[in-house]
Amino acid sequence: MIRVAIIGATGYTALELLKILLRHPDVEITTLTSRSEGSPHVASVHPQLAGRIDLTMADLGPTEIAARADVAFSCLPHGVTAALVPRLLDCGLKVIDLSADYRLNSAESYAEWYDQKHPDPARLGKTAYGLPELFREEIREARLVANPGCYPTSAILALAPLVKAGLISPRDIIVDSKSGVSGAGRTPKLTTHFPECNESVSAYNVGRHRHTPEIEQILSRASGTTVEVIFTPHLIPMDRGILSTTYSQPLAELSEEKALAVIREFYANEPFVRVVNHLPGTKDTADTNFCDITARVVRGKLITISCLDNLIKGASGAAVQNFNLMHGLPETTAL
Amino acid sequence: MIRVAIIGATGYTALELLKILLRHPDVEITTLTSRSEGSPHVASVHPQLAGRIDLTMADLGPTEIAARADVAFSCLPHGVTAALVPRLLDCGLKVIDLSADYRLNSAESYAEWYDQKHPDPARLGKTAYGLPELFREEIREARLVANPGCYPTSAILALAPLVKAGLISPRDIIVDSKSGVSGAGRTPKLTTHFPECNESVSAYNVGRHRHTPEIEQILSRASGTTVEVIFTPHLIPMDRGILSTTYSQPLAELSEEKALAVIREFYANEPFVRVVNHLPGTKDTADTNFCDITARVVRGKLITISCLDNLIKGASGAAVQNFNLMHGLPETTAL
Amino acid sequence: MIRVAIIGATGYTALELLKILLRHPDVEITTLTSRSEGSPHVASVHPQLAGRIDLTMADLGPTEIAARADVAFSCLPHGVTAALVPRLLDCGLKVIDLSADYRLNSAESYAEWYDQKHPDPARLGKTAYGLPELFREEIREARLVANPGCYPTSAILALAPLVKAGLISPRDIIVDSKSGVSGAGRTPKLTTHFPECNESVSAYNVGRHRHTPEIEQILSRASGTTVEVIFTPHLIPMDRGILSTTYSQPLAELSEEKALAVIREFYANEPFVRVVNHLPGTKDTADTNFCDITARVVRGKLITISCLDNLIKGASGAAVQNFNLMHGLPETTAL
Amino acid sequence: MIRVAIIGATGYTALELLKILLRHPDVEITTLTSRSEGSPHVASVHPQLAGRIDLTMADLGPTEIAARADVAFSCLPHGVTAALVPRLLDCGLKVIDLSADYRLNSAESYAEWYDQKHPDPARLGKTAYGLPELFREEIREARLVANPGCYPTSAILALAPLVKAGLISPRDIIVDSKSGVSGAGRTPKLTTHFPECNESVSAYNVGRHRHTPEIEQILSRASGTTVEVIFTPHLIPMDRGILSTTYSQPLAELSEEKALAVIREFYANEPFVRVVNHLPGTKDTADTNFCDITARVVRGKLITISCLDNLIKGASGAAVQNFNLMHGLPETTAL
Repeated sequence: MIRVAIIGATGYTALELLKILLRHPDVEITTLTSRSEGSPHVASVHPQLAGRIDLTMADLGPTEIAARADVAFSCLPHGVTAALVPRLLDCGLKVIDLSADYRLNSAESYAEWYDQKHPDPARLGKTAYGLPELFREEIREARLVANPGCYPTSAILALAPLVKAGLISPRDIIVDSKSGVSGAGRTPKLTTHFPECNESVSAYNVGRHRHTPEIEQILSRASGTTVEVIFTPHLIPMDRGILSTTYSQPLAELSEEKALAVIREFYANEPFVRVVNHLPGTKDTADTNFCDITARVVRGKLITISCLDNLIKGASGAAVQNFNLMHGLPETTAL
Repeated sequence: MIRVAIIGATGYTALELLKILLRHPDVEITTLTSRSEGSPHVASVHPQLAGRIDLTMADLGPTEIAARADVAFSCLPHGVTAALVPRLLDCGLKVIDLSADYRLNSAESYAEWYDQKHPDPARLGKTAYGLPELFREEIREARLVANPGCYPTSAILALAPLVKAGLISPRDIIVDSKSGVSGAGRTPKLTTHFPECNESVSAYNVGRHRHTPEIEQILSRASGTTVEVIFTPHLIPMDRGILSTTYSQPLAELSEEKALAVIREFYANEPFVRVVNHLPGTKDTADTNFCDITARVVRGKLITISCLDNLIKGASGAAVQNFNLMHGLPETTAL
Repeated sequence: MIRVAIIGATGYTALELLKILLRHPDVEITTLTSRSEGSPHVASVHPQLAGRIDLTMADLGPTEIAARADVAFSCLPHGVTAALVPRLLDCGLKVIDLSADYRLNSAESYAEWYDQKHPDPARLGKTAYGLPELFREEIREARLVANPGCYPTSAILALAPLVKAGLISPRDIIVDSKSGVSGAGRTPKLTTHFPECNESVSAYNVGRHRHTPEIEQILSRASGTTVEVIFTPHLIPMDRGILSTTYSQPLAELSEEKALAVIREFYANEPFVRVVNHLPGTKDTADTNFCDITARVVRGKLITISCLDNLIKGASGAAVQNFNLMHGLPETTAL
Repeated sequence: MIRVAIIGATGYTALELLKILLRHPDVEITTLTSRSEGSPHVASVHPQLAGRIDLTMADLGPTEIAARADVAFSCLPHGVTAALVPRLLDCGLKVIDLSADYRLNSAESYAEWYDQKHPDPARLGKTAYGLPELFREEIREARLVANPGCYPTSAILALAPLVKAGLISPRDIIVDSKSGVSGAGRTPKLTTHFPECNESVSAYNVGRHRHTPEIEQILSRASGTTVEVIFTPHLIPMDRGILSTTYSQPLAELSEEKALAVIREFYANEPFVRVVNHLPGTKDTADTNFCDITARVVRGKLITISCLDNLIKGASGAAVQNFNLMHGLPETTAL
């Protein structure tokens, strides 16, 4: 059994991790940490787990965590994470980091988009990006994996085959994304207060959402070309799900059939990407680790539509997929 | 023109008041108060009102309010309200209080249910309760009106005709209510965070919701009998609307037709109560000042079902109805 | 491997069955039937299942089904079901029937509530009712199991311990239930058209919902006492989940602690009933086979609150639980 | 009083028309038509209107309608409408047509997009398009007005100032729109069945939605330039509201401030267009006749975001605005 710790266990990605790992045959969840007062029992924080796991959350340091676990899933906020990760690694733990701290290429880029100095700049640009469809071999060898952002996963999976094949202009790409509210986390805010966001749709962080450089850098890394995107996220009144609609310019005439064939071929052996002919909805992927993708050509533009569950394939499902790879287990275990 | 102030103008009941009063031909909204920092413009707090009203919110005292307005709608929380109301009245203002501070009969009852000493106990039991269907004449004469709670309005309107007619046992009444989330106010909390309450229904404050004594005391006051209820509120994933299902024991055999006829007769001349034969849904009353009521008899028990918009007939619509009565205006103006 | 057929595979309970059975280690899904035209592929009916199962639906008779399967889960509507079940049994199949056709005690009761003559009256009152918490031994031996209704499961699990222990008056019970919309099935109707039922709550079928006799007869069967209930279902704007609030009269003074202790003791060894101290919400049980129950005493009345996922513990999860019992498998397999 | 008929009065746009016209001081609603059987009372079709209007719906012909009304709002489906409108006009009625039948320029275009021969081709290209912000004078003089589509209103209002000013490339425009479910009408379908579309977002009719030529032709008509758009509609789990995000290419360098200033200047005197600096949400415009618009420049592309209530400014509110103009009434009456 591989002993697992979840660091920062009060939020939604931690809850989903727990639900998945509880059915994982090779995992023993031994440790849950939280800065919450009073060492709450996990079931008082997540009533869905009542009777399923008997652990309390505690505020533990790296040594204590390493004494109890072999692997840590970190669900801490960015900034805090990169201050802790080096110490976890030093204690011998493998780490799957669900924050954004190790996804970007450089400390400069991090400082620009996250408005702070990176505490562990040496690992930037050298950390495995946990999208197995693009970086499976690196993940297998990694002791630290940067688990992808939810929006980036939806956009990158749709665009990577086309960018890598050189079929579309890499610097004229629009990503118009629609996300459920769980993507905003579990801390109450006015924008996610039910009567504010229910029955409404709005764009937010237009032109300055932090997933923009992540999409660009990973697509660039995967394709060897500089990719630039305009990324517009929208908040949708639903719990979970992301649908990304991308618009790009083919470099030569491109038929719908060709576009679909290229994407389908690219993911031919992937267990969690489904290239479909119909227009998928987020509900098709809810509570699963699938990403569904299709493509259309309209007036000469290529449109891709991709969707996934932001908490599963966009976070905790992908994290377990990475965990499986890092431990030589069948990649689909528990997923 | 009657000059109106809204005290505590940042919440949902204030927003609905503003929307109604903006179409009131006899009203000039002159004053909005708030303890928010920086004197925000009303449109920055309520973007729905952009371009419709040009006022900033300020933290004003009673004298300042009285210099600018003839009437104050108070949307402050309970406790705070009763500390302010005497001073507003002393300054010559009429006051319609949307908090719970003047609804109960006695300081003892208030202390028991609201866990605090009432700052203005002399007015308890003597303040007009702003349900025109039961207390129209008192409201006409009042300088202070206690605007009813949302749950109590739905329950009292359904039960009053039956209790007053002596048709049901007054001490064996169950009120099972279902409310949209706006009833919880505009302050973000975990229980009203979208991903927590969306796609879920739960009961809360079972046996100890503060609207329990209000329902009991007002029904007792209206009927001259001691009324006791068991009140169970439930949170429903929708913005607005309350549906209350009551169960009571007829004192003699009672047919559905008879029950409906008694209720219908009781409200024959009421502009905002619709006694219907079908089973109403909250959407039938959304954005209106109506309360829809029906009745059924099942296995000898009387069931009433009533619904309304908690922010309109359950709060701000009723407040304007009271305002109209207090000023000799047609009761339905702007509603 | 046990070969499984799903009869009537286009609806929501069939979809949930498929999702559960796909992770069942002892099951091979061999057969899906539907009267839909054109033998649709399961993924065109349920896009969630794309890439997970490769079967088409066909309109097959009992002999054809029996040639391909050992067990049939029947998701057909009532009436149609009881015309088919005897033939399935005659062909040697075991049957788990998710319709209401074999739940009631007698053809008279069936005719009264379902407005039609029962096609197979001899089996009424002799068929195992698939609630393992009450009828586990019968289910183990059964070749036909009547899978419980969703509302009845929520109400019976809450009330059975108290009725059996003789703690409450068995003929003065109110069940006020709130259900998500998937309970109404997958056939589009005006009442379940999104803009009609979204943002609204309403009662329906008051006093005449067909789950009323089911609750009464099963509670009577379990307790040996005649039980009568008033059952009021409400439609809630959410996909899934039922919360039932019951009100009953203790026969002697009863404390909250005692009530909770009795229920807790009753379910001490049950894997899927969680007796909790807090007020549970349907989301706590979403996508699980759990039923969460608590109790309160208010003004001398006993209130129970229970919730479950209407498509899982209220339908397909219970069906698989029954399947496991009928085949000597661990009861929690795949759940 | 102007006597008004609503033709095809059972749907959502008719309901909104009724709600608006009931508060219109110059209107008497005399006639409601429907092909529904049994001459239903309006309150049995629209329970929201119980007690507010006492009319039954009947299946009336043009002569009968003209005997009772001066103006007809037609809420019939496309195709049916254009077969009736000439007869209504011949009977002397003014007509405001909420269908798509008179919006396009030519019978060829209509045949291409609506798959049928237009029954009244002579009026195509000559009918006033009921967007007062662009065609106020034509509307004033018109006896027939083609009321705009909901998506086109949101897109055209955002883009027209920029296209007319020659600031953006007119043939490289993307319109990515998000709509609530009421836009799909009141007829139950699987795609709008609550458990199908709730908690999901999906694109539909990509590249072939019938509002595409309407957006293009009206923008072309308004600007004198050929405009081409790629239009992608998405279905959002909410009752009402449309948010359109457009992406276009400035012809010269364009700052955000300049773009906003041009739009603001264009609508300086418009009562129902609000150009805002913040990112608006559909809820800001719910139940109002407002369209809120803002603009951003990202990586050199111009992004506009506009929102409105699809049933009000996107349908019935605009229809009443047109009605007011056609009758020389203040344009904002009842809105």
